[in-house]
Amino acid sequence: MTARVHGTKACLHWMSPDREDPWLLTPGPITTARPTREAMLRDWGSRDAAFIALTARVRGRLLALAGGEGSHVCVPVQGSGSFGVEAALGTLVPRDGKVLVLANGAYGRRMAQICIQLGRDHVVYETAEDTPPEAAEVERRLSADPEIGFVAMVQCETSSGILNPVAEIAAVAAAAGRKLILDSISAFGALPLDVAALPCAAMIGAPNKCLEGVPGLAFVIVERDLLAASRGRAHSLVLDLYDQWRRFEGNGQWRFTPPTHVLAALDRALEGHEAEGGIDARRARYQENRRLLVDGMRGLGLETYLPDALQAPIIVTFHAPADGAFDFETFYGVLARDGFLIYPGKLTAAETFRIGCIGQLGPEQMREVAAAAGQALDHMGVEQRGRAAA
Amino acid sequence: MTARVHGTKACLHWMSPDREDPWLLTPGPITTARPTREAMLRDWGSRDAAFIALTARVRGRLLALAGGEGSHVCVPVQGSGSFGVEAALGTLVPRDGKVLVLANGAYGRRMAQICIQLGRDHVVYETAEDTPPEAAEVERRLSADPEIGFVAMVQCETSSGILNPVAEIAAVAAAAGRKLILDSISAFGALPLDVAALPCAAMIGAPNKCLEGVPGLAFVIVERDLLAASRGRAHSLVLDLYDQWRRFEGNGQWRFTPPTHVLAALDRALEGHEAEGGIDARRARYQENRRLLVDGMRGLGLETYLPDALQAPIIVTFHAPADGAFDFETFYGVLARDGFLIYPGKLTAAETFRIGCIGQLGPEQMREVAAAAGQALDHMGVEQRGRAAA
Repeated sequence: MTARVHGTKACLHWMSPDREDPWLLTPGPITTARPTREAMLRDWGSRDAAFIALTARVRGRLLALAGGEGSHVCVPVQGSGSFGVEAALGTLVPRDGKVLVLANGAYGRRMAQICIQLGRDHVVYETAEDTPPEAAEVERRLSADPEIGFVAMVQCETSSGILNPVAEIAAVAAAAGRKLILDSISAFGALPLDVAALPCAAMIGAPNKCLEGVPGLAFVIVERDLLAASRGRAHSLVLDLYDQWRRFEGNGQWRFTPPTHVLAALDRALEGHEAEGGIDARRARYQENRRLLVDGMRGLGLETYLPDALQAPIIVTFHAPADGAFDFETFYGVLARDGFLIYPGKLTAAETFRIGCIGQLGPEQMREVAAAAGQALDHMGVEQRGRAAA
Repeated sequence: MTARVHGTKACLHWMSPDREDPWLLTPGPITTARPTREAMLRDWGSRDAAFIALTARVRGRLLALAGGEGSHVCVPVQGSGSFGVEAALGTLVPRDGKVLVLANGAYGRRMAQICIQLGRDHVVYETAEDTPPEAAEVERRLSADPEIGFVAMVQCETSSGILNPVAEIAAVAAAAGRKLILDSISAFGALPLDVAALPCAAMIGAPNKCLEGVPGLAFVIVERDLLAASRGRAHSLVLDLYDQWRRFEGNGQWRFTPPTHVLAALDRALEGHEAEGGIDARRARYQENRRLLVDGMRGLGLETYLPDALQAPIIVTFHAPADGAFDFETFYGVLARDGFLIYPGKLTAAETFRIGCIGQLGPEQMREVAAAAGQALDHMGVEQRGRAAA
């Protein structure tokens, strides 16, 4: 097996991925450390004591990272992040409950779509894709509609890369006696979050974003009291967090076959997270990644979609150049040939593309991708590099 | 990267797992080949052309293995096998539809539980855990209740290891104009199945059983016409097979982040399956595993729960010895120390334990586990090795 990493010096080893793989400059799956992938070289018996201990260790580590020890519990669920979001909404919102969904991108809108599919009453407070929701407006809507029991929002909306004002919204929700359900999938592990202090009734995260694990599960950090009151609410057997929690409390096991290798990779990734210095160190690296990326791209004449003050250090949206010679497929293909996988835009309102700054990437990769982007623009003969006309 | 395997000679290499890992003698997750796990050493961009091609290749291979080319489509879904079963029932059975569930163990009962949770009307035809359902009784129930549109059953019920009579049930369902939904999770890849010939409207499989991949997804092989008629039926966003199918038909992508490494492992495992000689060769190996296991255990005076004629070559249930000195936890622990992870019983009616014969296991491991079981019985001082009193 691979040597464990200890202390920050080991991070240089930790940070040397295989050059035969492309770098993933996306909102996830992201580039992982080789030790994380090597943790998948072992098969686990899913009902054996060793795997039960692995599950307990991962649950405990995630709960501690979220600041939920004492008040919350961690319930992982198979699938992707959206499986966790649907599991949280389906398990926690009573069948006659009502949700205020804040949306300024695809992931906020997805929460509303889940409410529709599950038959949970909801209203949407939608803002433009470059505009955070306002706490005062949330306060107004909550006081106007006592039926609303839950506020659901996304911490970092990767449609644009915008950072939403979680603390302000949490404060007005708490003052109004409502529960906050937070999709922190793209941010957890790099942006600080204290579910008890906020307060946040339920937070959904995933391993394959800022925790730098591999995809295959989600986890919900949920208030113990709320979960304990949620028996029988779920619309689904496999997505019932209450039932899964009771099983963990009982024999420590998953109800249904867990993705054993994915969980082992997450355990290893959490070791790497701690070795790097935890949430603050990871955020610092991503912030520096973002700075180098944005500086490099601005040096090519490209403009960011968001002002810097609203930009999370997760993924950056750039306007496509105005020059008619720019073609995203060509741009993507040239960068992919150079080993950089970027992301198309997801906005309804503007021609854009996105470049992520999370995963096992550092200053070198950020400088390289900006240089490669410049070469790709030259390859296409793009001259006018300012923003495309709306 | 690891060398590819070609032809049957390579299977010796393919069949030499790491001895530092325990052997998994369970109904899955099972012991995989090292090349399968090594396929997880690469990170994939989930929206990149290479991964879209990987997804298409795996979907095509699974469809061909099931005999569904031309009539069916393959829709993978994140999660475990049970996520696939719930996705199939939720997507395909209309909200006012009715299902006849055949149950003779935990997985049949789970299908009924899913119907309850999803609010789908159903009736259960339950037989004892050692008794297959009778086609004549299914025929009688279908003709008595025209509301029933679907018959749901399990091919190999791993609660006991029993093989249910799929062909006979499929024939009466077809004659009565009803649709068969088949949980083939534990059997697919080793037991022959031709969804078009049976016919079977929907078959659910998983990578981490007889295909010898790793856990993290399920797949549904479903009649194209039935799926095309199932728009808007699903109780869930993330488990909606119709929506996922439309996405595959469109841009070839998963709707939500797929378990990229798990899919890459399945692709590699399917290469190994083909290299071994496909379904027939795999079944022959498992049948020989079962024969050696049962012979060895009977040599110790242990009795199988099922008569040989009903026993699938997947997992074998043994009666616990009558001797009061027998203790399952001790038995398990001694075998685990020797590197063999077996499985507890899951029956309501008898004191039993189970030993699997699937995964990257061969004659040597079967002889070794029987020998280790003998030593464990000696360790406990078990003298009377016949069946425990009921």
